[in-house]
Amino acid sequence: MAAADWGGKADHLAGERATAQFDVDGMKVAWAGSRHAVEVADRMACLVASDPVFRKDTRTMLSRKELFKDTLKKAAHAWKRTVELHLTEEEANLLRLYIDQPGYVDLHWVMFVPAIKGQGTEEQQKKWLTMAYKFQIIGTYAQTELGHGSNVQGLETTATFDPSTDEFIMHSPTLTSSKWWPGGLGKTSTHAVVYARLITEGKDYGIHGFIMQLRSLDDHSPLPGITIGDIGGKFGSGAYNSMDNGVMRLDHVRIPRDQMLMRLAQVTREGKYVHSDVPKQLLYGTMVYVRQTIVADASRALSRAVCIAVRYGAIRKQFGSKAGGPETQVLNYKTQQSRLFPFLASAYAFRFVGQWLKWLYTDVTQKLESKDFSTLPEAHACTAGLKSVTTSATADAIEECQKLCGGHGYLNSSGLPELFAVNLPACTYEGDNVVLLLQVARFLMKTVSQVASGKQPVGTTAYMGNIQHLMQCKSVVNTVEDWLNPAAIKEVFEARALRMAVNCAQNISKAPSQEEVSPSFPQI
Amino acid sequence: MAAADWGGKADHLAGERATAQFDVDGMKVAWAGSRHAVEVADRMACLVASDPVFRKDTRTMLSRKELFKDTLKKAAHAWKRTVELHLTEEEANLLRLYIDQPGYVDLHWVMFVPAIKGQGTEEQQKKWLTMAYKFQIIGTYAQTELGHGSNVQGLETTATFDPSTDEFIMHSPTLTSSKWWPGGLGKTSTHAVVYARLITEGKDYGIHGFIMQLRSLDDHSPLPGITIGDIGGKFGSGAYNSMDNGVMRLDHVRIPRDQMLMRLAQVTREGKYVHSDVPKQLLYGTMVYVRQTIVADASRALSRAVCIAVRYGAIRKQFGSKAGGPETQVLNYKTQQSRLFPFLASAYAFRFVGQWLKWLYTDVTQKLESKDFSTLPEAHACTAGLKSVTTSATADAIEECQKLCGGHGYLNSSGLPELFAVNLPACTYEGDNVVLLLQVARFLMKTVSQVASGKQPVGTTAYMGNIQHLMQCKSVVNTVEDWLNPAAIKEVFEARALRMAVNCAQNISKAPSQEEVSPSFPQI
Repeated sequence: MAAADWGGKADHLAGERATAQFDVDGMKVAWAGSRHAVEVADRMACLVASDPVFRKDTRTMLSRKELFKDTLKKAAHAWKRTVELHLTEEEANLLRLYIDQPGYVDLHWVMFVPAIKGQGTEEQQKKWLTMAYKFQIIGTYAQTELGHGSNVQGLETTATFDPSTDEFIMHSPTLTSSKWWPGGLGKTSTHAVVYARLITEGKDYGIHGFIMQLRSLDDHSPLPGITIGDIGGKFGSGAYNSMDNGVMRLDHVRIPRDQMLMRLAQVTREGKYVHSDVPKQLLYGTMVYVRQTIVADASRALSRAVCIAVRYGAIRKQFGSKAGGPETQVLNYKTQQSRLFPFLASAYAFRFVGQWLKWLYTDVTQKLESKDFSTLPEAHACTAGLKSVTTSATADAIEECQKLCGGHGYLNSSGLPELFAVNLPACTYEGDNVVLLLQVARFLMKTVSQVASGKQPVGTTAYMGNIQHLMQCKSVVNTVEDWLNPAAIKEVFEARALRMAVNCAQNISKAPSQEEVSPSFPQI
Repeated sequence: MAAADWGGKADHLAGERATAQFDVDGMKVAWAGSRHAVEVADRMACLVASDPVFRKDTRTMLSRKELFKDTLKKAAHAWKRTVELHLTEEEANLLRLYIDQPGYVDLHWVMFVPAIKGQGTEEQQKKWLTMAYKFQIIGTYAQTELGHGSNVQGLETTATFDPSTDEFIMHSPTLTSSKWWPGGLGKTSTHAVVYARLITEGKDYGIHGFIMQLRSLDDHSPLPGITIGDIGGKFGSGAYNSMDNGVMRLDHVRIPRDQMLMRLAQVTREGKYVHSDVPKQLLYGTMVYVRQTIVADASRALSRAVCIAVRYGAIRKQFGSKAGGPETQVLNYKTQQSRLFPFLASAYAFRFVGQWLKWLYTDVTQKLESKDFSTLPEAHACTAGLKSVTTSATADAIEECQKLCGGHGYLNSSGLPELFAVNLPACTYEGDNVVLLLQVARFLMKTVSQVASGKQPVGTTAYMGNIQHLMQCKSVVNTVEDWLNPAAIKEVFEARALRMAVNCAQNISKAPSQEEVSPSFPQI
C-alpha cells in the first residue's frame, strides 16, 4: 500500500479556500481590529507554537496533579519570556491568551490587580501593585462563598474592627461562609482581596474588600488561622482542572486596618465609618471591564469551535454517492448548513460587539472620572445582557459543533470537548446568565416607564425614544432584496424589541406581585 | 464553634418530603414497573453500595490508566459476584447498571451477544455464545470506521472469499477504512463481530458481519496482521474514559468461512452467495432492542440529574430575605421552577415510554418470527424518533441542571459533569439524532401519502386515519379545567401533529428536489 493511498498528505481544504469570495486579508484586519493587531497576534501565536514548554497536545492525557504542575511551569515560563523579551502589556496578554490554559495568573491580572486599582487608595495601589506587577506576590479574588454567589450582599464572612489593636478580625462564622471557588486560592496565591461584612462600633456596614496575606512568603504555608484547600475536580478532562479553585476558612485572623480597601470608604483609627468623596459607582467600571473580557473570550471560543466544525464538514464525506462516485461533503448538506452557518455569523457578530464593548468601557470610565453617571445604568444593562447572550450562545454552539463533527467531536483530539468544558461555566460565573437577563429586563421595564413619562433614553436604548413611530410603523420590506437594506432590518429589530418590551411592561402592571416572579436583585 | 452551627447534620430535605401529596410507595412501584422490580433494584443497589470494590467517589480523581484498571477490576468483581450469588440475567443487568461505569462488558452483552443471536445460525450461536456466556471470550462490535458512521453501506473494510483455502481475507484497504470507536476494542476484547463488504466471485455483496478473533487467548497479544490501539481521551473527566474505544487495521487477515454470520445469507464452499429463507428484516429487531435500552438509559440519567437539581434547589437559599430573616429556597422561585419542573415531568414521561418500548420490542420480535412485517416501519420510526427525542432532551436537561445548581453544578462532586459527559454522546451513537429525525420525517411523509390513498396507518400513527375529523376539528377546551381531560389533550396533540405533517408534505411536493435538502438515507 503506497503512502499516498492513505491520504495522509493531501490538502483537503485548499479547494474550499480557493473559492472564497471576500478579501481574506482585509477580513483578518477587520477581525483583529487593525493591521498592527494582526501583526502582534501572529507574533505571539508563533511564540507559543514554537516553544516546547507551551505544548498543548498532551494536556488531556495528564493526571490532575501533572496538569496543575504543567500550568505552573507554563505560567513561570510565560513570565520569564515576558521579562526577557520586554513584552508590552498588550503582547503579554496575548501570550497568556494563546497559552490557553486557565491558571492562577488569570485571577491575578484580571481580578486581583483591577480590584486594587479600582478600590484601593493611591497609597494602597503604590504599595500592593508594585509587588503584584513584579509577581512578588500572587493575588486572587475571594468573593464567592459556599452559601452565596449571586447574592453578594448575603456574604457572611466578617471583618470586625478592633480599636484596641487597630486591626480587623477576619472570620468565617458558619460553614456556608467558607470562601469557595476563587481560582488560584487552593494552592498558589499568597494574597487575596477578601470580601467581608465590615463591622465597627457594633454596626454592620455591609460588604467591603480587604487585602489579606494568605501564605508565608518564605515557605508558602498558610498563615495561622487560615485553612485552605482545593475544591476538587471540575467538568472536563483538562479545562478548569488546571486551576486550583479553592476553599478557605478564617478563624479570627487579624490584619492591619490599612488593608481595608479604602478608596470609597474608610474606618478611622477610632473606628468611625466614613465615606470618601469618591462615588461608589466607580465600582461598576470594574464590572464592565470584566464582563467585556468575558464577551471577548466567548467570541474567541466560538470562532475556534466553528472553525473546527467547518473544516470537518469540508473534509468529511458521507452518503449521496451516485454510481460509486465520491460521497457528498457533509458541509454541502442543507441540514448541516442550517445548524452551522448561524454560528459562523454569530462568531463575527460577537467579535465585533466585543470590540464595541471595549470602547464602551473606555467611554464609561471617562464619564465616571468626570462624575457623569447618566449612562451607567444603560452601560451596565448592556454588558450584563451581552455577557449573558454571548456566553449562552457560545456554549450551546460549541456543544452543537461537537455533534456536527459526529462521533469525532467527542474525542479530545478534536479540541471541542475542552473548548466546551472551559466555556460552559462562563454562563454562571461573574453573574448567572438568567439572573443577568432578569436585570436587563428590569432595566428595560424601567426605561419603558421613563419613556412614557417623556424622558429621553440613552445609548443602545436611544431608539426607544422613537416610540410613536415604532409602535405603529409597518416594515418597508416588500421584496427579498429589501432585506439587504440595513436600515430596513434595523427598523424591524427596533420595532419588534420595543413592542415586546411595552407588551411585557403592560403584562407586569397587571400581575399581582413581582416578588413571586423573581428574586429582588440588587439594582444600580 | 459548636458542630451544630456548621449545619453538617441537619436533614434539609425532610420538610420537603413531608409535604408530598402523592403515594410515594405507589409511585416507586409504578416507576420500577412492579413490586418485584422495586425489590430487585433495591437489592442490587445495596449490593453495589455496600461493596468497597464498587466505590465511585474517587472515580474522577483517577488518571486515565488508573480509571481503566479500576474498570477492569470492577468488571471482574461483578462477574465473580454474579457467579457466586447465582444472579439471574435481570439481576446481573441491574448490577452492571448500578456499577455505572462504561466498560467492555457493555459492548459484550449489549452488542456482541445480541449480534450473534440475531445474525448467527443455530450452530454458530451454540459455538460462540457458549463461550461468550462464560466470558471465555470477550466480544465487541466493530462496525463504525474512521470514514463512515451513519452511512453503514459506505463501509470500506473488505471480506474477500478465497475458495482455494475456504477462507475470508479480512482487509482494511484505506486509512478511512480503519475500524474506529468500538468500545472494548482498544485493550480488552478477544473477539469481535466485524462488519465488512463481502466479495466473492469478483462481486461485492455489500455489508455483512464476521466473527473474528483479535487477540491471543494465551498472552492477549493481537493476532498477526491485526494492528489495534486505543483512540485516546474523550469528553469528560471520567465518563467514557473508562472505556477503551479502539482503532483497528486489518492486513489480509484470514478467517475460516464459517465465521461469516450466516443466518440470513451464506457463501458456499464453492464461493456462491446464497440467501437463506430467513428474512433480512430480522436485523431490525436488534436495532429496536439496542435503541430501547438507550431510551431506558436516557430516562435513568435524566431522573438522576433532576433529582440532584431538585434537592439542590430545596437546600440552596439565595435572595429574598426580609428584615434579616432566612433567604428564599431557590426551588421556590418561578424562574427556577419554569426551567426545572418540565425536566421532572419529562423524567417520568421518558421512564414510562421506555417501559412501553420494551413491550414494543417483544411485540415486534413475535411478529417478525411469524413473518409479519406489517408493523415494522412504524416500530422502526417510533424507536428512531424516541431515541432521538429522549437523548437530546436528556443531554440538554443535564446541562441545564448543571446551570440550575449554579457554580456547584460544574464540580465533579455534584455528579452532574460525569452524567452529562456520559450521556451527551448518546445523541450521536447508534444513529445520529438529526439523521434519525429525518428518517422519522420521511416515514411520516410516506404515511401521509398512504393515508391520502386510503391505506389505514398502524400503531402510534393509527390516529392519522382520523384525518377527516382532525384536519378541521376545534379544541373542546373552553376553561382551564378542561385541560385536565386527557382526551382533550390527546386530540389537541393529534390535530397539531397531523396538520404539521400534512402541511410539510404539501411544502415538499412544491420543492424543486429532495436530494438538495437532505442526504438520501437508507430506508427500510
